Amino acid sequence: MSRKPMVRPGGRSARVQEAVHTAVRELQAEVGRPELTIPLVAARAGVTPSTVYRRWGDLQELLSDVAVENLRPDTPPQDHGDLAADLRNWAEQFIEEMASPIGRAYIRDALLGAPDGDNAARCSQYAAEQIDVVLARAAERGEDAPGVELVLDRVVAPMMYRILFRPGDPAAPGAPGAPGSLTAEYARGLVQDLLDGFGAPH
Amino acid sequence: MSRKPMVRPGGRSARVQEAVHTAVRELQAEVGRPELTIPLVAARAGVTPSTVYRRWGDLQELLSDVAVENLRPDTPPQDHGDLAADLRNWAEQFIEEMASPIGRAYIRDALLGAPDGDNAARCSQYAAEQIDVVLARAAERGEDAPGVELVLDRVVAPMMYRILFRPGDPAAPGAPGAPGSLTAEYARGLVQDLLDGFGAPH
Repeated sequence: MSRKPMVRPGGRSARVQEAVHTAVRELQAEVGRPELTIPLVAARAGVTPSTVYRRWGDLQELLSDVAVENLRPDTPPQDHGDLAADLRNWAEQFIEEMASPIGRAYIRDALLGAPDGDNAARCSQYAAEQIDVVLARAAERGEDAPGVELVLDRVVAPMMYRILFRPGDPAAPGAPGAPGSLTAEYARGLVQDLLDGFGAPH
Repeated sequence: MSRKPMVRPGGRSARVQEAVHTAVRELQAEVGRPELTIPLVAARAGVTPSTVYRRWGDLQELLSDVAVENLRPDTPPQDHGDLAADLRNWAEQFIEEMASPIGRAYIRDALLGAPDGDNAARCSQYAAEQIDVVLARAAERGEDAPGVELVLDRVVAPMMYRILFRPGDPAAPGAPGAPGSLTAEYARGLVQDLLDGFGAPH
């Protein structure tokens, strides 16, 4: 499946990954993606090209790996005091980041990794982990809440579907179900429709 | 945006497209995708490589174009006499085709086309057109029905999200919201949950 060996924090493998990822990010900014090559990345990272080929296989897989790392959330979702507000804010931020040109490029690169690899699954896992935090807080407050898989189906999936399969949709104001709806309002509507079935305050 | 010129049926452009698409399909079956090159495809199609480069740009874009064509539905959805049955059957067939290894490969190839191109949008358009047929029949029967955009959000998007971002999900029986749920049962559950809000018979 994945070519990546287990990475021990601080071990050589982790240092190589860090150096190569950094080299990709720097070179993407400096020379642009079309000019990237594995020898160029390896030289910048101070490793041999064969080290990069052995670990990542090809440039597409390496770019996919870097993209997923860029999509990893830095912080847990903000706590706004109730489930509806937490989910709404998380969904608004998610659509803003993912529908941006940079977000779209990362998602695309992530999906271009090996079809049987785990990069696409890691994207979904990041979203699920953030939602888990929101749902765990709701449970502590005693709020009724849907399960994480239902939030993925009802909130995350529609946003990602439109980002990937409706690239021409303008980011115009729109209710759920309206075309051209990659907006905060659309994200809020998805959350609202989901929670309407759960008696949560909103 | 797209490199493809307008295609007049029966014109030279249409004949070139047909010959090149056929060459790609034959060669994928005969020599496999990793061995495909544009010169090889051009030779089989009886055109010059520069004709292919001019029209499609590169091999990835050509494969994307062929994949989308393979995803085009051959027939309208079956008429089962009521909205719930029509949507259920369409969704079951959709998940069966798209979650298959061949379906996944086509979706992936379609998404790998030019990011500002229209191949991904054509996939969504095909689904929307099929759903439109189902919804128009419901309207003729006087049934309450959701709009096509809501069906995309609630039925199509969750299936495609799991196909793309949960590639490791086993195709095990599962209700909506359960992991490992790329099954006919999951598809039926998505339709049921959607129609529960519309008072349609099911």
